[in-house]
Amino acid sequence: MSATMALQRPTRVAFFGQAGTFTHFAARTKFGSSIEYLPHRDIRDVFLAVSRGRADFGVVPIENSTEGGVNQTLDMFAESRLKIASEIYAPIHHHLLSKSPLDKVRVIYSHPQPFAQCRNWLMGNLGHLDQREVGSTAAAAEMAAKDPHAAAIAGRLAAEIYKVPIIAEHIEDSPDNTTRFFVVAERMSDRTGKDKTSVLISVKDEPGALLRILMPFQSHRINLTRIESRPSRRRAWEYHFFVDFEGHATDEHIRVALHELDTHAKHVEVLGSYPAAEKLPTRK
Amino acid sequence: MSATMALQRPTRVAFFGQAGTFTHFAARTKFGSSIEYLPHRDIRDVFLAVSRGRADFGVVPIENSTEGGVNQTLDMFAESRLKIASEIYAPIHHHLLSKSPLDKVRVIYSHPQPFAQCRNWLMGNLGHLDQREVGSTAAAAEMAAKDPHAAAIAGRLAAEIYKVPIIAEHIEDSPDNTTRFFVVAERMSDRTGKDKTSVLISVKDEPGALLRILMPFQSHRINLTRIESRPSRRRAWEYHFFVDFEGHATDEHIRVALHELDTHAKHVEVLGSYPAAEKLPTRK
Repeated sequence: MSATMALQRPTRVAFFGQAGTFTHFAARTKFGSSIEYLPHRDIRDVFLAVSRGRADFGVVPIENSTEGGVNQTLDMFAESRLKIASEIYAPIHHHLLSKSPLDKVRVIYSHPQPFAQCRNWLMGNLGHLDQREVGSTAAAAEMAAKDPHAAAIAGRLAAEIYKVPIIAEHIEDSPDNTTRFFVVAERMSDRTGKDKTSVLISVKDEPGALLRILMPFQSHRINLTRIESRPSRRRAWEYHFFVDFEGHATDEHIRVALHELDTHAKHVEVLGSYPAAEKLPTRK
Repeated sequence: MSATMALQRPTRVAFFGQAGTFTHFAARTKFGSSIEYLPHRDIRDVFLAVSRGRADFGVVPIENSTEGGVNQTLDMFAESRLKIASEIYAPIHHHLLSKSPLDKVRVIYSHPQPFAQCRNWLMGNLGHLDQREVGSTAAAAEMAAKDPHAAAIAGRLAAEIYKVPIIAEHIEDSPDNTTRFFVVAERMSDRTGKDKTSVLISVKDEPGALLRILMPFQSHRINLTRIESRPSRRRAWEYHFFVDFEGHATDEHIRVALHELDTHAKHVEVLGSYPAAEKLPTRK
């Protein structure tokens, strides 16, 4: 579609989960409240919505400061041709929502990641209760809205939207619990001078392969900010590495390093360059 | 207890999950059928059983060739003082178990990892059905034994133990799907000459930290076989790295490298040295 047509309708942002999830919250901090938000049940569907033109941007979680990488998002980048256009850091505070007091709760609903992020609190307080995993914190809040003996681990936005009281606040094990989200789009962002780049590197299962792919970053003094490995899903024990570093893919020293990397790795793909966002919150 | 007392009773092996899980299957390939097996509901409980002397060994999954690392096991190594005594590779074949034919199935039970490992098959065949996550493949098989409209994704051992027919075989996305397990014990294994070692390295969130910890491995020509990062769970964006490499912690060049590493990293801990096992299956 033409740029003129694009101006005639509001920006459409696809996000993972239903209204009230942390991804919805993160998307609103980036794009504000006056645009069209499209909830999607699956991370894969967010990518599809953008690549098929049904949305201009997609917002997906990529890693949590306590629980680590979101595997389904990492795996989608190995399949999709979409680029990373922005990163968003959003603080994650979990609360226990229920229409009953704590001692009347019989079952707890949440997504696997919040269960993991509140593991210590749950063991100390509600370790005997049945934990049921559902697709999102918002879906958990919906269950707690329907069943007075159920509780949900969810955020404040979900408590408001589904009208379930908060009976225990801030139950996350790490008080500075933060999730990083990526905004995916047809194209990456332009250089700002304070950028980060994410690449996917395929490595063969052979001696020395891992160190060889890291050498170009060292020789060009590129600061790696993150490395995450995932199985390639094509062959057993063959890995993809997701590497984030400081700089933009159009910077001269980055271009040279990526070219060298290409000769050592099986495959290298730039997933995107985007302005470096502040890691929130700071607790120093 | 004394070695004499230990000889007077059979070896006790704690494993994650209930009878019929893949971990039970892996434990049996290692320890045979004439010892005492102790099922444990939680990966944490397996570590506790061994550290409190209620079991001689513990068997836990550490990574799957399709789905990647098992976060709860990785995180337990950051807490526990137990050592890795062996590694086990076991092929994972998933089947759909139900007392109903495929078109009468209304709900599917399994553990999150099998759901992820059969993602493509499920989307193509049963994408419309409700997926309910339970604690293990064996628990899923038990549900399918009780409810004729339920199906379970589980292994052959679970189908046998819980007496539920297999209605679709080999539904895993990767036919060479394999899981690696660790045997944990009070002490690591002695040197055999063909060993692997696992270390946990804590790294500060600062420029260049990641490359600095990898340098000693390169300068001593130590072959890294795996690197996996996990949040430290102590401070946001601070990571532990789990690094596996060839050699035994008592080998001279490994000792020197670990000493150098210690000066660059925040903290280094040898999780164990153990005989290198064959990666199964081979599909070349």
